[in-house]
Amino acid sequence: MPDRHSHRFRVRYIECDHQGVVFNAHYLAYFDLGLTELWRAALGSYQAMLDGGHDVVVVEATVRYRAPARFDDELTVETRLRSFGTTSMRLANRLIRAADGALLAEGDLAYVFVGRSGAKTDVPETIRRALEPGP
Amino acid sequence: MPDRHSHRFRVRYIECDHQGVVFNAHYLAYFDLGLTELWRAALGSYQAMLDGGHDVVVVEATVRYRAPARFDDELTVETRLRSFGTTSMRLANRLIRAADGALLAEGDLAYVFVGRSGAKTDVPETIRRALEPGP
Amino acid sequence: MPDRHSHRFRVRYIECDHQGVVFNAHYLAYFDLGLTELWRAALGSYQAMLDGGHDVVVVEATVRYRAPARFDDELTVETRLRSFGTTSMRLANRLIRAADGALLAEGDLAYVFVGRSGAKTDVPETIRRALEPGP
Amino acid sequence: MPDRHSHRFRVRYIECDHQGVVFNAHYLAYFDLGLTELWRAALGSYQAMLDGGHDVVVVEATVRYRAPARFDDELTVETRLRSFGTTSMRLANRLIRAADGALLAEGDLAYVFVGRSGAKTDVPETIRRALEPGP
Repeated sequence: MPDRHSHRFRVRYIECDHQGVVFNAHYLAYFDLGLTELWRAALGSYQAMLDGGHDVVVVEATVRYRAPARFDDELTVETRLRSFGTTSMRLANRLIRAADGALLAEGDLAYVFVGRSGAKTDVPETIRRALEPGP
Repeated sequence: MPDRHSHRFRVRYIECDHQGVVFNAHYLAYFDLGLTELWRAALGSYQAMLDGGHDVVVVEATVRYRAPARFDDELTVETRLRSFGTTSMRLANRLIRAADGALLAEGDLAYVFVGRSGAKTDVPETIRRALEPGP
Repeated sequence: MPDRHSHRFRVRYIECDHQGVVFNAHYLAYFDLGLTELWRAALGSYQAMLDGGHDVVVVEATVRYRAPARFDDELTVETRLRSFGTTSMRLANRLIRAADGALLAEGDLAYVFVGRSGAKTDVPETIRRALEPGP
Repeated sequence: MPDRHSHRFRVRYIECDHQGVVFNAHYLAYFDLGLTELWRAALGSYQAMLDGGHDVVVVEATVRYRAPARFDDELTVETRLRSFGTTSMRLANRLIRAADGALLAEGDLAYVFVGRSGAKTDVPETIRRALEPGP
Protein backbone atom coordinates (compact mmCIF):
# COMPACT_ATOMS: atom_id res chain seq x y z
CA MET A 1 0.00 0.00 0.00
CA PRO A 2 1.11 3.57 -0.57
CA ASP A 3 1.30 5.42 2.74
CA ARG A 4 -1.97 7.23 2.16
CA HIS A 5 -5.14 6.61 0.23
CA SER A 6 -7.11 9.39 -1.47
CA HIS A 7 -10.74 9.52 -2.54
CA ARG A 8 -12.40 12.37 -4.43
CA PHE A 9 -16.08 13.27 -4.02
CA ARG A 10 -18.43 16.25 -4.01
CA VAL A 11 -20.29 17.93 -1.18
CA ARG A 12 -24.03 17.28 -1.45
CA TYR A 13 -26.75 19.84 -0.92
CA ILE A 14 -28.28 17.78 1.88
CA GLU A 15 -25.02 18.05 3.84
CA CYS A 16 -25.05 21.85 3.99
CA ASP A 17 -26.75 23.74 6.76
CA HIS A 18 -28.32 27.14 7.13
CA GLN A 19 -24.83 28.66 7.47
CA GLY A 20 -24.21 27.42 3.91
CA VAL A 21 -21.47 25.06 5.01
CA VAL A 22 -21.18 21.34 5.67
CA PHE A 23 -22.62 20.50 9.09
CA ASN A 24 -19.93 19.32 11.52
CA ALA A 25 -21.23 15.74 11.92
CA HIS A 26 -20.89 15.01 8.20
CA TYR A 27 -17.10 15.23 8.39
CA LEU A 28 -17.14 11.93 10.27
CA ALA A 29 -19.25 10.50 7.44
CA TYR A 30 -16.60 11.75 4.99
CA PHE A 31 -13.83 10.06 6.99
CA ASP A 32 -15.90 6.88 6.90
CA LEU A 33 -16.00 7.17 3.10
CA GLY A 34 -12.22 7.28 3.26
CA LEU A 35 -12.24 4.09 5.34
CA THR A 36 -14.48 2.27 2.85
CA GLU A 37 -12.12 3.23 0.04
CA LEU A 38 -9.11 2.18 2.11
CA TRP A 39 -10.62 -1.30 2.49
CA ARG A 40 -11.30 -1.40 -1.25
CA ALA A 41 -7.67 -0.56 -2.03
CA ALA A 42 -6.23 -2.92 0.58
CA LEU A 43 -8.63 -5.88 0.60
CA GLY A 44 -10.85 -5.58 -2.46
CA SER A 45 -13.80 -4.25 -0.47
CA TYR A 46 -15.17 -3.72 3.03
CA GLN A 47 -17.38 -6.74 2.34
CA ALA A 48 -14.24 -8.87 1.91
CA MET A 49 -13.29 -8.01 5.49
CA LEU A 50 -16.80 -8.76 6.76
CA ASP A 51 -16.79 -12.05 4.83
CA GLY A 52 -13.55 -12.89 6.63
CA GLY A 53 -15.39 -12.51 9.95
CA HIS A 54 -13.83 -9.17 10.90
CA ASP A 55 -15.24 -5.70 11.42
CA VAL A 56 -14.12 -2.47 13.08
CA VAL A 57 -15.85 -0.11 15.48
CA VAL A 58 -14.82 3.46 16.20
CA VAL A 59 -13.74 4.05 19.79
CA GLU A 60 -12.51 7.62 19.55
CA ALA A 61 -12.75 10.33 16.93
CA THR A 62 -11.32 13.83 16.84
CA VAL A 63 -12.02 16.36 14.13
CA ARG A 64 -10.23 19.69 13.79
CA TYR A 65 -12.19 22.02 11.53
CA ARG A 66 -9.86 24.38 9.66
CA ALA A 67 -12.07 25.97 7.00
CA PRO A 68 -15.61 25.30 5.85
CA ALA A 69 -16.50 22.95 3.01
CA ARG A 70 -19.36 24.26 0.88
CA PHE A 71 -22.04 22.85 -1.40
CA ASP A 72 -20.71 21.34 -4.64
CA ASP A 73 -17.05 21.65 -3.55
CA GLU A 74 -14.90 18.82 -4.81
CA LEU A 75 -13.06 17.35 -1.84
CA THR A 76 -10.36 14.76 -1.36
CA VAL A 77 -10.40 12.66 1.76
CA GLU A 78 -6.95 11.27 2.55
CA THR A 79 -6.62 8.30 4.87
CA ARG A 80 -3.29 7.29 6.38
CA LEU A 81 -2.45 4.50 8.79
CA ARG A 82 -0.90 5.94 11.94
CA SER A 83 -0.36 2.76 13.93
CA PHE A 84 -1.67 -0.64 14.90
CA GLY A 85 -2.08 -1.81 18.50
CA THR A 86 -2.83 -5.39 19.47
CA THR A 87 -6.55 -5.04 18.74
CA SER A 88 -6.66 -1.47 17.46
CA MET A 89 -5.83 0.76 14.53
CA ARG A 90 -5.35 4.51 14.39
CA LEU A 91 -5.99 6.41 11.18
CA ALA A 92 -5.21 10.02 10.32
CA ASN A 93 -7.54 11.76 7.90
CA ARG A 94 -7.26 14.99 5.99
CA LEU A 95 -10.02 16.66 4.03
CA ILE A 96 -8.70 18.81 1.20
CA ARG A 97 -10.50 21.14 -1.21
CA ALA A 98 -9.55 19.99 -4.69
CA ALA A 99 -9.73 23.43 -6.31
CA ASP A 100 -6.86 24.93 -4.32
CA GLY A 101 -5.48 22.21 -2.07
CA ALA A 102 -6.70 23.99 1.07
CA LEU A 103 -6.79 21.80 4.19
CA LEU A 104 -10.38 21.95 5.47
CA ALA A 105 -10.29 19.41 8.29
CA GLU A 106 -8.14 16.83 10.00
CA GLY A 107 -9.28 13.70 11.76
CA ASP A 108 -7.79 11.19 14.16
CA LEU A 109 -9.82 8.03 14.43
CA ALA A 110 -9.19 5.02 16.63
CA TYR A 111 -10.87 1.70 15.85
CA VAL A 112 -10.89 -1.71 17.46
CA PHE A 113 -11.30 -4.92 15.53
CA VAL A 114 -14.21 -7.17 16.47
CA GLY A 115 -15.25 -10.64 15.42
CA ARG A 116 -18.69 -11.87 14.45
CA SER A 117 -19.78 -11.94 18.10
CA GLY A 118 -18.83 -8.29 18.52
CA ALA A 119 -15.96 -9.16 20.89
CA LYS A 120 -12.56 -7.52 20.44
CA THR A 121 -10.05 -9.51 18.42
CA ASP A 122 -6.42 -9.09 17.50
CA VAL A 123 -5.75 -7.18 14.31
CA PRO A 124 -6.04 -9.82 11.57
CA GLU A 125 -2.63 -10.51 10.01
CA THR A 126 -4.02 -10.11 6.47
CA ILE A 127 -5.19 -6.64 7.34
CA ARG A 128 -1.99 -5.69 9.12
CA ARG A 129 0.03 -6.77 6.09
CA ALA A 130 -2.34 -5.13 3.62
CA LEU A 131 -2.25 -1.74 5.31
CA GLU A 132 1.35 -1.48 6.43
CA PRO A 133 3.39 0.57 3.95
CA GLY A 134 5.96 -1.40 2.00
CA PRO A 135 9.70 -1.02 2.51
CA MET B 1 -56.52 2.04 18.59
CA PRO B 2 -57.76 5.57 17.99
CA ASP B 3 -58.01 6.25 14.29
CA ARG B 4 -54.82 8.28 14.21
CA HIS B 5 -51.62 8.40 16.23
CA SER B 6 -49.74 11.67 16.94
CA HIS B 7 -46.13 12.25 17.89
CA ARG B 8 -44.58 15.61 18.75
CA PHE B 9 -40.93 16.46 18.06
CA ARG B 10 -38.69 19.37 17.06
CA VAL B 11 -36.87 20.12 13.83
CA ARG B 12 -33.12 19.71 14.28
CA TYR B 13 -30.48 22.07 12.95
CA ILE B 14 -28.86 19.27 10.94
CA GLU B 15 -32.12 18.78 9.01
CA CYS B 16 -32.23 22.32 7.65
CA ASP B 17 -30.59 23.27 4.41
CA HIS B 18 -29.13 26.44 2.97
CA GLN B 19 -32.66 27.65 2.16
CA GLY B 20 -33.25 27.60 5.94
CA VAL B 21 -35.92 24.92 5.68
CA VAL B 22 -36.06 21.18 6.24
CA PHE B 23 -34.58 19.32 3.27
CA ASN B 24 -37.21 17.32 1.37
CA ALA B 25 -35.78 13.85 2.12
CA HIS B 26 -36.12 14.36 5.88
CA TYR B 27 -39.92 14.36 5.66
CA LEU B 28 -39.74 10.64 4.95
CA ALA B 29 -37.61 10.27 8.06
CA TYR B 30 -40.32 12.15 10.01
CA PHE B 31 -43.00 9.81 8.67
CA ASP B 32 -40.82 6.91 9.77
CA LEU B 33 -40.76 8.41 13.27
CA GLY B 34 -44.53 8.33 13.12
CA LEU B 35 -44.39 4.65 12.17
CA THR B 36 -42.11 3.80 15.09
CA GLU B 37 -44.52 5.53 17.47
CA LEU B 38 -47.47 3.76 15.85
CA TRP B 39 -45.83 0.41 16.61
CA ARG B 40 -45.17 1.53 20.17
CA ALA B 41 -48.85 2.45 20.65
CA ALA B 42 -50.17 -0.67 18.95
CA LEU B 43 -47.68 -3.39 19.87
CA GLY B 44 -45.48 -2.06 22.67
CA SER B 45 -42.57 -1.33 20.33
CA TYR B 46 -41.19 -1.90 16.84
CA GLN B 47 -38.87 -4.44 18.45
CA ALA B 48 -41.94 -6.44 19.57
CA MET B 49 -42.91 -6.81 15.91
CA LEU B 50 -39.37 -7.81 14.93
CA ASP B 51 -39.26 -10.30 17.81
CA GLY B 52 -42.48 -11.77 16.38
CA GLY B 53 -40.63 -12.44 13.11
CA HIS B 54 -42.29 -9.63 11.16
CA ASP B 55 -41.02 -6.48 9.54
CA VAL B 56 -42.23 -3.98 6.95
CA VAL B 57 -40.56 -2.47 3.91
CA VAL B 58 -41.72 0.64 2.07
CA VAL B 59 -42.80 0.00 -1.52
CA GLU B 60 -44.18 3.41 -2.43
CA ALA B 61 -44.04 6.83 -0.82
CA THR B 62 -45.60 10.12 -1.85
CA VAL B 63 -44.98 13.42 -0.10
CA ARG B 64 -46.91 16.60 -0.84
CA TYR B 65 -45.04 19.61 0.52
CA ARG B 66 -47.46 22.37 1.56
CA ALA B 67 -45.32 24.81 3.54
CA PRO B 68 -41.77 24.67 4.83
CA ALA B 69 -40.80 23.39 8.27
CA ARG B 70 -38.02 25.42 9.86
CA PHE B 71 -35.29 24.90 12.44
CA ASP B 72 -36.60 24.46 16.01
CA ASP B 73 -40.26 24.28 14.89
CA GLU B 74 -42.32 21.94 17.02
CA LEU B 75 -44.07 19.52 14.70
CA THR B 76 -46.67 16.83 15.09
CA VAL B 77 -46.55 13.83 12.80
CA GLU B 78 -49.95 12.14 12.52
CA THR B 79 -50.16 8.58 11.29
CA ARG B 80 -53.44 7.01 10.21
CA LEU B 81 -54.17 3.57 8.81
CA ARG B 82 -55.75 3.85 5.38
CA SER B 83 -56.17 0.19 4.52
CA PHE B 84 -54.75 -3.29 4.68
CA GLY B 85 -54.27 -5.55 1.66
CA THR B 86 -53.38 -9.21 1.89
CA THR B 87 -49.67 -8.52 2.44
CA SER B 88 -49.70 -4.74 2.50
CA MET B 89 -50.63 -1.71 4.57
CA ARG B 90 -51.25 1.87 3.49
CA LEU B 91 -50.69 4.74 5.92
CA ALA B 92 -51.60 8.40 5.59
CA ASN B 93 -49.35 10.90 7.30
CA ARG B 94 -49.74 14.56 8.08
CA LEU B 95 -47.06 16.88 9.36
CA ILE B 96 -48.48 19.77 11.36
CA ARG B 97 -46.77 22.82 12.87
CA ALA B 98 -47.69 22.83 16.53
CA ALA B 99 -47.64 26.60 16.96
CA ASP B 100 -50.55 27.30 14.61
CA GLY B 101 -51.82 23.94 13.38
CA ALA B 102 -50.64 24.64 9.83
CA LEU B 103 -50.47 21.58 7.58
CA LEU B 104 -46.88 21.42 6.30
CA ALA B 105 -46.86 18.12 4.45
CA GLU B 106 -48.92 15.04 3.68
CA GLY B 107 -47.65 11.57 3.02
CA ASP B 108 -49.04 8.36 1.57
CA LEU B 109 -46.90 5.35 2.31
CA ALA B 110 -47.40 1.77 1.20
CA TYR B 111 -45.63 -1.05 2.99
CA VAL B 112 -45.46 -4.80 2.57
CA PHE B 113 -44.95 -7.21 5.42
CA VAL B 114 -41.96 -9.51 5.24
CA GLY B 115 -40.81 -12.44 7.34
CA ARG B 116 -37.33 -13.18 8.64
CA SER B 117 -36.22 -14.38 5.19
CA GLY B 118 -37.27 -11.09 3.64
CA ALA B 119 -40.10 -12.76 1.68
CA LYS B 120 -43.57 -11.19 1.60
CA THR B 121 -46.02 -12.51 4.17
CA ASP B 122 -49.67 -11.96 4.93
CA VAL B 123 -50.42 -9.14 7.33
CA PRO B 124 -50.06 -10.75 10.78
CA GLU B 125 -53.45 -11.03 12.50
CA THR B 126 -52.09 -9.47 15.72
CA ILE B 127 -51.04 -6.40 13.77
CA ARG B 128 -54.27 -6.19 11.78
CA ARG B 129 -56.27 -6.30 15.02
CA ALA B 130 -53.96 -3.89 16.82
CA LEU B 131 -54.17 -1.22 14.12
CA GLU B 132 -57.77 -1.47 12.98
CA PRO B 133 -59.90 1.19 14.67
CA GLY B 134 -62.37 -0.11 17.21
CA PRO B 135 -66.13 -0.10 16.60
CA MET C 1 -29.38 18.45 -23.72
CA PRO C 2 -29.76 14.73 -24.24
CA ASP C 3 -33.16 13.58 -23.04
CA ARG C 4 -31.80 12.15 -19.81
CA HIS C 5 -28.84 12.83 -17.58
CA SER C 6 -26.98 10.06 -15.71
CA HIS C 7 -24.78 10.24 -12.64
CA ARG C 8 -22.87 7.33 -11.11
CA PHE C 9 -22.13 7.06 -7.38
CA ARG C 10 -21.76 4.50 -4.59
CA VAL C 11 -24.01 3.70 -1.65
CA ARG C 12 -22.41 4.82 1.62
CA TYR C 13 -22.32 2.83 4.83
CA ILE C 14 -24.13 5.61 6.70
CA GLU C 15 -27.10 5.27 4.33
CA CYS C 16 -27.76 1.61 5.16
CA ASP C 17 -30.03 0.57 7.96
CA HIS C 18 -30.30 -2.43 10.21
CA GLN C 19 -32.03 -4.33 7.37
CA GLY C 20 -28.76 -3.91 5.47
CA VAL C 21 -30.37 -1.81 2.76
CA VAL C 22 -30.56 1.88 1.96
CA PHE C 23 -33.14 3.58 4.20
CA ASN C 24 -36.12 4.85 2.20
CA ALA C 25 -35.56 8.58 2.82
CA HIS C 26 -32.12 8.49 1.22
CA TYR C 27 -33.61 7.78 -2.22
CA LEU C 28 -34.86 11.36 -2.25
CA ALA C 29 -31.34 12.48 -1.44
CA TYR C 30 -30.12 10.41 -4.42
CA PHE C 31 -32.66 12.05 -6.72
CA ASP C 32 -31.43 15.42 -5.45
CA LEU C 33 -27.91 14.37 -6.46
CA GLY C 34 -29.35 13.78 -9.90
CA LEU C 35 -30.82 17.28 -9.89
CA THR C 36 -27.50 18.87 -8.94
CA GLU C 37 -25.81 17.04 -11.80
CA LEU C 38 -28.61 18.05 -14.17
CA TRP C 39 -27.95 21.71 -13.34
CA ARG C 40 -24.23 21.15 -13.88
CA ALA C 41 -24.85 19.67 -17.34
CA ALA C 42 -27.43 22.27 -18.33
CA LEU C 43 -26.22 25.49 -16.70
CA GLY C 44 -22.66 24.89 -15.51
CA SER C 45 -23.72 24.44 -11.88
CA TYR C 46 -26.56 24.80 -9.41
CA GLN C 47 -24.76 27.90 -8.17
CA ALA C 48 -25.12 29.44 -11.64
CA MET C 49 -28.88 29.18 -11.26
CA LEU C 50 -28.77 30.67 -7.77
CA ASP C 51 -26.51 33.47 -9.02
CA GLY C 52 -29.17 34.17 -11.65
CA GLY C 53 -31.67 34.73 -8.83
CA HIS C 54 -33.56 31.47 -9.33
CA ASP C 55 -34.07 28.42 -7.18
CA VAL C 56 -36.44 25.46 -7.06
CA VAL C 57 -38.42 23.89 -4.24
CA VAL C 58 -39.96 20.43 -4.27
CA VAL C 59 -43.75 20.44 -4.05
CA GLU C 60 -44.46 16.74 -4.57
CA ALA C 61 -42.32 13.62 -4.61
CA THR C 62 -43.21 10.01 -5.28
CA VAL C 63 -40.80 7.12 -4.95
CA ARG C 64 -41.59 3.56 -6.06
CA TYR C 65 -39.16 1.14 -4.46
CA ARG C 66 -38.53 -1.87 -6.75
CA ALA C 67 -35.54 -3.63 -5.19
CA PRO C 68 -33.18 -2.70 -2.38
CA ALA C 69 -29.90 -0.86 -2.87
CA ARG C 70 -27.13 -2.15 -0.63
CA PHE C 71 -23.91 -0.85 0.89
CA ASP C 72 -21.14 -0.22 -1.64
CA ASP C 73 -23.43 -0.83 -4.64
CA GLU C 74 -22.58 1.35 -7.62
CA LEU C 75 -25.74 3.12 -8.70
CA THR C 76 -26.74 5.35 -11.57
CA VAL C 77 -29.33 8.01 -10.99
CA GLU C 78 -31.04 9.02 -14.24
CA THR C 79 -32.88 12.32 -14.44
CA ARG C 80 -35.27 13.14 -17.27
CA LEU C 81 -37.41 16.20 -17.86
CA ARG C 82 -41.07 15.23 -18.05
CA SER C 83 -42.65 18.63 -18.56
CA PHE C 84 -42.63 22.29 -17.72
CA GLY C 85 -45.66 24.20 -16.46
CA THR C 86 -45.80 27.97 -16.18
CA THR C 87 -43.91 28.01 -12.87
CA SER C 88 -43.19 24.32 -12.45
CA MET C 89 -41.07 21.45 -13.69
CA ARG C 90 -41.64 17.70 -13.43
CA LEU C 91 -38.70 15.31 -13.45
CA ALA C 92 -38.68 11.54 -13.72
CA ASN C 93 -35.88 9.71 -11.94
CA ARG C 94 -34.66 6.15 -12.16
CA LEU C 95 -32.15 4.53 -9.86
CA ILE C 96 -30.27 1.69 -11.53
CA ARG C 97 -27.74 -0.80 -10.14
CA ALA C 98 -24.67 -0.51 -12.31
CA ALA C 99 -23.59 -4.15 -11.96
CA ASP C 100 -26.62 -5.61 -13.72
CA GLY C 101 -28.80 -2.71 -14.85
CA ALA C 102 -31.56 -3.63 -12.39
CA LEU C 103 -34.11 -0.88 -11.79
CA LEU C 104 -34.10 -0.26 -8.02
CA ALA C 105 -36.40 2.75 -7.74
CA GLU C 106 -38.35 5.29 -9.74
CA GLY C 107 -39.15 8.82 -8.76
CA ASP C 108 -41.54 11.55 -9.90
CA LEU C 109 -40.65 14.94 -8.56
CA ALA C 110 -42.48 18.21 -9.08
CA TYR C 111 -40.73 21.51 -8.42
CA VAL C 112 -41.72 25.14 -8.58
CA PHE C 113 -39.34 27.93 -9.42
CA VAL C 114 -38.90 30.69 -6.87
CA GLY C 115 -37.08 34.00 -6.92
CA ARG C 116 -34.83 35.49 -4.26
CA SER C 117 -37.86 36.45 -2.14
CA GLY C 118 -39.06 32.86 -2.16
CA ALA C 119 -42.11 33.77 -4.27
CA LYS C 120 -43.08 31.60 -7.24
CA THR C 121 -41.78 32.77 -10.60
CA ASP C 122 -42.22 31.67 -14.19
CA VAL C 123 -39.75 29.07 -15.40
CA PRO C 124 -36.73 31.14 -16.50
CA GLU C 125 -36.32 31.02 -20.30
CA THR C 126 -32.63 30.12 -20.02
CA ILE C 127 -33.53 27.09 -17.97
CA ARG C 128 -36.41 26.07 -20.20
CA ARG C 129 -34.12 26.20 -23.23
CA ALA C 130 -31.25 24.48 -21.47
CA LEU C 131 -33.34 21.51 -20.35
CA GLU C 132 -35.65 20.96 -23.29
CA PRO C 133 -34.36 18.20 -25.55
CA GLY C 134 -33.09 19.34 -28.92
CA PRO C 135 -34.90 18.57 -32.17
CA MET D 1 -27.91 28.20 34.97
CA PRO D 2 -27.43 24.85 36.64
CA ASP D 3 -23.99 23.49 35.87
CA ARG D 4 -25.28 21.07 33.28
CA HIS D 5 -28.25 20.88 30.96
CA SER D 6 -29.99 17.60 30.08
CA HIS D 7 -32.19 16.69 27.13
CA ARG D 8 -33.99 13.38 26.62
CA PHE D 9 -34.70 11.89 23.18
CA ARG D 10 -34.95 8.56 21.39
CA VAL D 11 -32.67 6.93 18.84
CA ARG D 12 -34.31 6.88 15.39
CA TYR D 13 -34.28 3.96 13.01
CA ILE D 14 -32.55 6.05 10.32
CA GLU D 15 -29.60 6.61 12.67
CA CYS D 16 -28.79 2.90 13.05
CA ASP D 17 -26.48 1.10 10.71
CA HIS D 18 -26.06 -2.46 9.54
CA GLN D 19 -24.31 -3.29 12.83
CA GLY D 20 -27.61 -2.39 14.54
CA VAL D 21 -26.08 0.53 16.40
CA VAL D 22 -26.02 4.29 15.96
CA PHE D 23 -23.50 5.27 13.29
CA ASN D 24 -20.56 7.21 14.75
CA ALA D 25 -21.26 10.52 12.97
CA HIS D 26 -24.72 10.84 14.54
CA TYR D 27 -23.22 11.31 18.01
CA LEU D 28 -22.09 14.76 16.88
CA ALA D 29 -25.66 15.43 15.78
CA TYR D 30 -26.81 14.39 19.28
CA PHE D 31 -24.32 16.78 20.90
CA ASP D 32 -25.68 19.51 18.62
CA LEU D 33 -29.17 18.73 19.94
CA GLY D 34 -27.74 19.32 23.39
CA LEU D 35 -26.38 22.69 22.24
CA THR D 36 -29.75 23.75 20.84
CA GLU D 37 -31.40 22.90 24.15
CA LEU D 38 -28.64 24.71 26.05
CA TRP D 39 -29.43 27.88 24.08
CA ARG D 40 -33.11 27.39 24.80
CA ALA D 41 -32.47 27.13 28.55
CA ALA D 42 -29.99 30.00 28.64
CA LEU D 43 -31.30 32.47 26.06
CA GLY D 44 -34.83 31.41 25.15
CA SER D 45 -33.74 29.83 21.85
CA TYR D 46 -30.89 29.49 19.40
CA GLN D 47 -32.79 31.95 17.22
CA ALA D 48 -32.52 34.54 20.02
CA MET D 49 -28.74 34.31 19.71
CA LEU D 50 -28.88 34.58 15.92
CA ASP D 51 -31.24 37.55 16.21
CA GLY D 52 -28.63 39.17 18.46
CA GLY D 53 -26.12 38.87 15.60
CA HIS D 54 -24.14 36.02 17.11
CA ASP D 55 -23.50 32.46 16.06
CA VAL D 56 -21.03 29.70 16.89
CA VAL D 57 -18.98 27.39 14.71
CA VAL D 58 -17.32 24.18 15.84
CA VAL D 59 -13.54 24.23 15.61
CA GLU D 60 -12.71 20.93 17.29
CA ALA D 61 -14.74 17.93 18.34
CA THR D 62 -13.71 14.75 20.13
CA VAL D 63 -16.02 11.82 20.77
CA ARG D 64 -15.12 8.85 22.95
CA TYR D 65 -17.45 5.94 22.23
CA ARG D 66 -17.97 3.82 25.37
CA ALA D 67 -20.90 1.55 24.48
CA PRO D 68 -23.28 1.44 21.54
CA ALA D 69 -26.62 3.23 21.45
CA ARG D 70 -29.33 1.17 19.75
CA PHE D 71 -32.60 1.80 17.91
CA ASP D 72 -35.40 3.12 20.13
CA ASP D 73 -33.09 3.59 23.15
CA GLU D 74 -34.04 6.58 25.26
CA LEU D 75 -30.94 8.71 25.68
CA THR D 76 -30.05 11.78 27.70
CA VAL D 77 -27.54 14.21 26.27
CA GLU D 78 -25.89 16.27 29.00
CA THR D 79 -24.17 19.51 28.12
CA ARG D 80 -21.82 21.28 30.52
CA LEU D 81 -19.81 24.45 30.08
CA ARG D 82 -16.12 23.72 30.55
CA SER D 83 -14.66 27.16 29.94
CA PHE D 84 -14.80 30.36 27.98
CA GLY D 85 -11.82 31.87 26.14
CA THR D 86 -11.83 35.34 24.64
CA THR D 87 -13.69 34.25 21.52
CA SER D 88 -14.27 30.60 22.32
CA MET D 89 -16.30 28.20 24.42
CA ARG D 90 -15.60 24.61 25.38
CA LEU D 91 -18.45 22.25 26.18
CA ALA D 92 -18.35 18.76 27.65
CA ASN D 93 -21.07 16.35 26.58
CA ARG D 94 -22.16 13.02 27.95
CA LEU D 95 -24.60 10.64 26.30
CA ILE D 96 -26.39 8.43 28.80
CA ARG D 97 -28.81 5.55 28.31
CA ALA D 98 -31.91 6.39 30.30
CA ALA D 99 -32.85 2.80 31.13
CA ASP D 100 -29.78 2.09 33.24
CA GLY D 101 -27.72 5.28 33.38
CA ALA D 102 -24.92 3.71 31.32
CA LEU D 103 -22.46 6.21 29.85
CA LEU D 104 -22.46 5.59 26.10
CA ALA D 105 -20.27 8.43 24.85
CA GLU D 106 -18.44 11.55 25.91
CA GLY D 107 -17.75 14.62 23.84
CA ASP D 108 -15.48 17.64 24.03
CA LEU D 109 -16.47 20.39 21.66
CA ALA D 110 -14.76 23.71 21.09
CA TYR D 111 -16.62 26.56 19.42
CA VAL D 112 -15.74 30.08 18.39
CA PHE D 113 -18.24 32.90 18.30
CA VAL D 114 -18.76 34.68 15.00
CA GLY D 115 -20.69 37.76 13.99
CA ARG D 116 -22.97 38.23 11.00
CA SER D 117 -19.96 38.57 8.67
CA GLY D 118 -18.64 35.21 9.86
CA ALA D 119 -15.63 36.85 11.53
CA LYS D 120 -14.61 35.82 15.05
CA THR D 121 -15.98 37.94 17.85
CA ASP D 122 -15.52 38.09 21.60
CA VAL D 123 -17.90 35.93 23.59
CA PRO D 124 -21.00 38.12 23.99
CA GLU D 125 -21.42 39.22 27.62
CA THR D 126 -25.08 38.16 27.67
CA ILE D 127 -24.06 34.65 26.71
CA ARG D 128 -21.15 34.50 29.13
CA ARG D 129 -23.47 35.55 31.98
CA ALA D 130 -26.27 33.24 30.87
CA LEU D 131 -24.07 30.14 30.76
CA GLU D 132 -21.76 30.67 33.72
CA PRO D 133 -22.99 28.73 36.73
CA GLY D 134 -24.33 30.84 39.57
CA PRO D 135 -22.45 31.28 42.84
